[in-house]
Amino acid sequence: MRNLDENTITDAVLARHEHAPDERLKTIVTSLVRHLHAFAREVGLTEREWEAGIRFLTDVGHITDDRRQEFILLSDTLGLSMLVTAMAHRKPSGCTEATVFGPFFVDNAPEYRNGDDVANGARGEPCFVSGVVRGPDGEPVSCARIEVWQADAEGFYDVQHSNADTHRARGVLHSLPDGRYHFRSIVAEPYPIPHDGPVGRMLEALGRHPWRPAHLHFMITAPGYERLVTHVFREGDRYLDSDAVFGVRSSLIAPWIRHESGTAPDGTVMATPFSTLAFDFVLSRSS
Amino acid sequence: MRNLDENTITDAVLARHEHAPDERLKTIVTSLVRHLHAFAREVGLTEREWEAGIRFLTDVGHITDDRRQEFILLSDTLGLSMLVTAMAHRKPSGCTEATVFGPFFVDNAPEYRNGDDVANGARGEPCFVSGVVRGPDGEPVSCARIEVWQADAEGFYDVQHSNADTHRARGVLHSLPDGRYHFRSIVAEPYPIPHDGPVGRMLEALGRHPWRPAHLHFMITAPGYERLVTHVFREGDRYLDSDAVFGVRSSLIAPWIRHESGTAPDGTVMATPFSTLAFDFVLSRSS
Repeated sequence: MRNLDENTITDAVLARHEHAPDERLKTIVTSLVRHLHAFAREVGLTEREWEAGIRFLTDVGHITDDRRQEFILLSDTLGLSMLVTAMAHRKPSGCTEATVFGPFFVDNAPEYRNGDDVANGARGEPCFVSGVVRGPDGEPVSCARIEVWQADAEGFYDVQHSNADTHRARGVLHSLPDGRYHFRSIVAEPYPIPHDGPVGRMLEALGRHPWRPAHLHFMITAPGYERLVTHVFREGDRYLDSDAVFGVRSSLIAPWIRHESGTAPDGTVMATPFSTLAFDFVLSRSS
Repeated sequence: MRNLDENTITDAVLARHEHAPDERLKTIVTSLVRHLHAFAREVGLTEREWEAGIRFLTDVGHITDDRRQEFILLSDTLGLSMLVTAMAHRKPSGCTEATVFGPFFVDNAPEYRNGDDVANGARGEPCFVSGVVRGPDGEPVSCARIEVWQADAEGFYDVQHSNADTHRARGVLHSLPDGRYHFRSIVAEPYPIPHDGPVGRMLEALGRHPWRPAHLHFMITAPGYERLVTHVFREGDRYLDSDAVFGVRSSLIAPWIRHESGTAPDGTVMATPFSTLAFDFVLSRSS
């Protein structure tokens, strides 16, 4: 312990955790330290590079606040979030796949009834969304809690606007007795993840763009079923093959159908253009 | 790219960096992503554990400010800092070994002449420090810039005190024509690294103490020689074998000799107890 060098230090650190009271924490930290040290040795990390890393993490920490979570952005853009999601939700065949949670979820979104307009003033072309929530055997799931959130026509979530006190283009509704749900919102558009901070600088330095293909977030919970956190992606989007956070699944891509005017699925007569999206969800059973 | 799973996502992330303009950055991020993903797969990182990690890093970021660098503490306590230091300073035999920089260095410390008291009011028993700065062939190095910093009797650096505007127990002096240096300060005492934040909670959860053995920091620079960043550790300290940041080297341990009263090495007549420390440095040549 008094003559550590670059080859012996890893075991010395791990030895210090020998009596860690929490076995799971010990397992995690052991693997973390091994990989952290192996990374530094593998690339021959210099002191200047280490300093740059410390500065980068400090910047990530300082830009993070109640409205902006740059560490989640970092995890998302390095593919860690999608990896953790994939491991956590190995869905039985036929069940709707999960994808990343993202940094823009907000607690206490307003409650809506089926048919309501969750846009609540968010800018964008009207979009009527509908579908059915089912279980793995095709049984309709009634009263499932469906939470939706999305960006507006400018590519911003409500929390990114300066007047962020009002919930816009997000809300909670519940499936009907036959599993059906339907609501009005706005058309989802592609948008760049916040890239005016350290993660944006990282992407630029790596020659990457910050764009995500257009999508609508869903989080669906119902007793007896595993919570589903997913997106529906817009078919034809130019960023489907280069999502900045690696969240796309083929099975989650669906067409937004555009109508010049006419009667919407819920009977509303629209004099202006609107879109419709139909998407059914299949929940897996909770274990 | 539209059907990533836990096994294919790593290559998908790396493929995104194919055209990164900076080859070195690409090398570093490639290794980082591989190890980050391998870590998550190896331990089967759950979503809750991922969330705890995001919260932990957020806390580390939020407690970090101009006076406190919790990311450096984190790197220090995980042994990464010592690993990077060891790789950066593979010293020729006979040269003074380097150790961690630590988070308490401050730019623009006051200049002192040899013989001055750098304590500048810091509390502690007087200590007279002296030695010689030499090159690898034994040649004295004159006019080497010697920067020293240390904790006081309470275990705090000046920057940790609320009245942190005054530099105490830190300063810059220069070696004399024959390579000698000597100054007065206070006796170094062991101290815990700041442990009222997330890194302290991590250490506690791992069953580790936050203490560092007593030491005096030195940073020595001279034209033609490699910069030396090191500590001198106090012989007999109870934490020499369990330094919280893994910085101890046998060759850097020296005795602080205590005197009840009498004449100090610089001729000062002391009516109260004091200590003396003699330590010579051997710089390596810059390449």
